[in-house]
Amino acid sequence: MPDGRVVATTDLLVEDQHFRLDWSAAADVGVKAAAQNLADVAAMGAEPRTLLVGLACPAGLAVSWVLQMIGGMAAECRRAGASIAGGDVTAAPCVMLAITALGELAGGRPVTRAGARPGDVVALAGQVGASAAGLALLRAGKATRADAGEYGAGESGASECGAGECGAGESDGSEYSASDLGRLVAAHLRPQPPYPAGPAAAASATAMIDVSDGLLQDLGHIAAASGVAIDVATAALPCGEPTRAAASLLGVAWQDWALTGGEDHALAATFPAGSAPPDGWRVIGNVREGDGVLVDGERRAAGGGWEHFR
Amino acid sequence: MPDGRVVATTDLLVEDQHFRLDWSAAADVGVKAAAQNLADVAAMGAEPRTLLVGLACPAGLAVSWVLQMIGGMAAECRRAGASIAGGDVTAAPCVMLAITALGELAGGRPVTRAGARPGDVVALAGQVGASAAGLALLRAGKATRADAGEYGAGESGASECGAGECGAGESDGSEYSASDLGRLVAAHLRPQPPYPAGPAAAASATAMIDVSDGLLQDLGHIAAASGVAIDVATAALPCGEPTRAAASLLGVAWQDWALTGGEDHALAATFPAGSAPPDGWRVIGNVREGDGVLVDGERRAAGGGWEHFR
Repeated sequence: MPDGRVVATTDLLVEDQHFRLDWSAAADVGVKAAAQNLADVAAMGAEPRTLLVGLACPAGLAVSWVLQMIGGMAAECRRAGASIAGGDVTAAPCVMLAITALGELAGGRPVTRAGARPGDVVALAGQVGASAAGLALLRAGKATRADAGEYGAGESGASECGAGECGAGESDGSEYSASDLGRLVAAHLRPQPPYPAGPAAAASATAMIDVSDGLLQDLGHIAAASGVAIDVATAALPCGEPTRAAASLLGVAWQDWALTGGEDHALAATFPAGSAPPDGWRVIGNVREGDGVLVDGERRAAGGGWEHFR
Repeated sequence: MPDGRVVATTDLLVEDQHFRLDWSAAADVGVKAAAQNLADVAAMGAEPRTLLVGLACPAGLAVSWVLQMIGGMAAECRRAGASIAGGDVTAAPCVMLAITALGELAGGRPVTRAGARPGDVVALAGQVGASAAGLALLRAGKATRADAGEYGAGESGASECGAGECGAGESDGSEYSASDLGRLVAAHLRPQPPYPAGPAAAASATAMIDVSDGLLQDLGHIAAASGVAIDVATAALPCGEPTRAAASLLGVAWQDWALTGGEDHALAATFPAGSAPPDGWRVIGNVREGDGVLVDGERRAAGGGWEHFR
């Protein structure tokens, strides 16, 4: 950590709480566990450098599962420019992963949740809704993890769209297709956060967060920490056509997935009014005096987003 | 981390695997979880600075348990000169703690397991056997956690002896007493690693480790990593009279506890022959050509020490 500071974050993933062994291949679990922690480092404006991995599992868990899980984790680390430095293994009644990610600021400043000011714009890097769509398809039996393909096979296409590459209203008029559904399932099983967008925003962002529990809930953390209100424009949300088509298929509103679905691990940040957000960032709203999160100017009822103890 | 380097370690503690809710008060669990990670930092020759704490638990766990657990953890951090920086909370079928400790080298060099050379002496800071004695007393019903007293009440006396303060052969001839048994239970429930001994050894130690899985097993890690044999002299082991008395009470050999009992979190290190180990360190053996760990010059059969999956 050449500049003498270290960004550190830790997260737990518990079987049947954060992943299901029948829905997620071992490599998927590794990718997801790495991605959510590496994204937290990027959301501070830092470059991810290393992971520590704690694995608790029943004695009967196959070693092959562990090796494939770590393989997925290592691959996602490589995608982020990080590596796995060490960890711990112990017995437990269920599979649990405890990941700590360390990152470096490389001379930049850490971006917290607390700096948003009225007049700032709110911007997003990455996508929202695709992970929730994939989860809903799995729950409804409309797709299986096999539809998501294998990890490493054309992985660059696993994410519905890259940071800034797709957005609202880009429908080409096609109906949903099996491969679209598979890409949504892949987005749920193997989220691909836009890591470089974090350090890229560090120079100008006033606040930043990783969208892991749902856009409204996570923007709410910025609003609360900064003492401001945030207004999100649904028409501006980068929620792709496959997600909208899947919502039609299941008879739900895509906006619900985009606003309250977790685990896409997009990055959300606020930038001073008048400064163009960096490449890869799309403006989705603005910051006002007040408190809480508004959608298209209206206050949402409480609820939505991931609740850890329900 | 002013010198640009960070020492990082992570450990998992699982209910019924590493602690029992009926044997350990909440504060005890916090002390133990902090101590084992902070000791790992000290065993690299670094000064502990901060913990990240992941807590997975059933939704029904009392908030008061969590607050007391964190209270114990924070107190042990203060004892080590560290603090708790953050963490994560999630639901799980049992209580699991995932601790990451970060430390700084303050310009010194990291001490690994790999530098021991034939001719070095082996030394220990802290005690061995007391934690195993306390555990055996609990298992045998000869003592309860109530005998260990409450955390914070005369805590400085909870450890059987401090680094370098007691050792083999210091018997005063007394029989075991209830308070001695209580001190052994306290040593099991709330280990007190000799943190400053780690950085104090960094300038001269050739290898170092924290004794968490049993002295023989952990010295075996040094022997394997360094490509040497280590010979331990049982007569030199810092195993106090209360531990020996408890062994007599239960009809077992105190040497077994001292050699294979885990969780005292003493520090073991090797130093060049002819250089006196720093204050707080007691010579307990020497390094030879060869491999493995010998006891009083004889090779021990495999086995002993903590097995994570049995």
